[in-house]
Amino acid sequence: MLRLLPPPAGEQSPDSVYAALDWRAPAGARPHVALNMVCTADGRAAVAGRAAGIGSPTDRLLMRQLRAQADAVMVGAGTLRAEALTPTVPASYAAARLARGQSAQPLGVLVSNSGRLPLDRSFFTRADFARALITSAAGAAALAPAARAGLRVLIAGESAVDLAAALGALRAELGVRWLLCEGGPTLNHALLAAGLVDELFLTLAPKLAAGPGPTIVEGAPFAPAAAPRLRLLTVHADGDELYLRYRVVREEAAPCR
Amino acid sequence: MLRLLPPPAGEQSPDSVYAALDWRAPAGARPHVALNMVCTADGRAAVAGRAAGIGSPTDRLLMRQLRAQADAVMVGAGTLRAEALTPTVPASYAAARLARGQSAQPLGVLVSNSGRLPLDRSFFTRADFARALITSAAGAAALAPAARAGLRVLIAGESAVDLAAALGALRAELGVRWLLCEGGPTLNHALLAAGLVDELFLTLAPKLAAGPGPTIVEGAPFAPAAAPRLRLLTVHADGDELYLRYRVVREEAAPCR
Repeated sequence: MLRLLPPPAGEQSPDSVYAALDWRAPAGARPHVALNMVCTADGRAAVAGRAAGIGSPTDRLLMRQLRAQADAVMVGAGTLRAEALTPTVPASYAAARLARGQSAQPLGVLVSNSGRLPLDRSFFTRADFARALITSAAGAAALAPAARAGLRVLIAGESAVDLAAALGALRAELGVRWLLCEGGPTLNHALLAAGLVDELFLTLAPKLAAGPGPTIVEGAPFAPAAAPRLRLLTVHADGDELYLRYRVVREEAAPCR
Repeated sequence: MLRLLPPPAGEQSPDSVYAALDWRAPAGARPHVALNMVCTADGRAAVAGRAAGIGSPTDRLLMRQLRAQADAVMVGAGTLRAEALTPTVPASYAAARLARGQSAQPLGVLVSNSGRLPLDRSFFTRADFARALITSAAGAAALAPAARAGLRVLIAGESAVDLAAALGALRAELGVRWLLCEGGPTLNHALLAAGLVDELFLTLAPKLAAGPGPTIVEGAPFAPAAAPRLRLLTVHADGDELYLRYRVVREEAAPCR
């Protein structure tokens, strides 16, 4: 594939694109938070209800590279219902993770306001990674007893999850420094609205889908003064697919004169 | 700004990015059709109901370069109501247009199924460019007499516009070889669904908007086998904003064995 930014542009092996990110231990009380999403050129993050199938094998390779460096991979319960995903990496990544002092697999983190969980998903039935649930007090009260088996439950908020508090708990209680969020669009919106996102990894698939599928961020419009702005860090291309890495920044207030 | 694709990457003046496109006289019975759209990184083609304000001054410069090479600039009536746009270029482009045998300004083409037109818009009140209306037979019957002044009316379809026939008429009757469509998303969808789009120029603004705004293509989902695929032709960057040029292709049927 081609690295287009930063210069100099040139050929780059897909194996190295996101394999050694410049992630440092975050200074604040929460993890460094990166979103990883794929969408069509017309902005659809799901086609026929699912993100699977939008991206290419290269997109999935880069997704595994991101997961392999994260301490934890987070997903919303709605996305888990739709996608049947498991936030794991192939065993070939485990040695490097262990050498860096990480667990062999990222911690799987599920976010649910309600506590109603799709317990039949491989996220719950596989034994090769640790799991945590972020939920509200109401959601915790609604949890089926079977759901608690092997699940670390972090309670933040009364009826809806307080994401800032939850991320603080992920850091303080579970040692999560780098958190990769794989959606869905509603969870992305809640994180962005709370100012909790540091980076966006966006794959732009070379296709048009139309239809009712969501974009990568779904929720109330951001007020112009508070809308997240993006700094373009890197651009790669493989065939017609683009891989964009952005830093998320808040709009600066105009300086006083 | 930077040209990222095609290689070699390097600095390029914004004045030259889309100023000399490789557009040839189309072989078929309709014009060469290019869409030009701007959206946020989360796919919104309108924020608070309008596209204006999403793109940077560089985006608008490139828009003018595209318009300056088009024989006609087309827009849907809904977008004209929302945006108050006039499909013109500064007078500095006129000499080059005249030297190429084009009119000093592109023909302004409005598409309306209903024939109910926003006659107070500068699209109708300015005298410095020619105008055409594409509408259905029902829309033509509903046209206010005042709307016909200075307006070439092309009728295609009974109650809804037949875009393939309308584009054929633009070519055959008005000599339009290169047609730039500036939306909106519903007109884009109708053109794509009918297989009438050759290129997509897409500016990706470095911001996130969320909210109810449309994407660049709004309408029923494309069937997977008929969904438009994109070939990435060029990529430019100015600061954090990206300018993508795609060729639109139909998914190839699997070859027979």
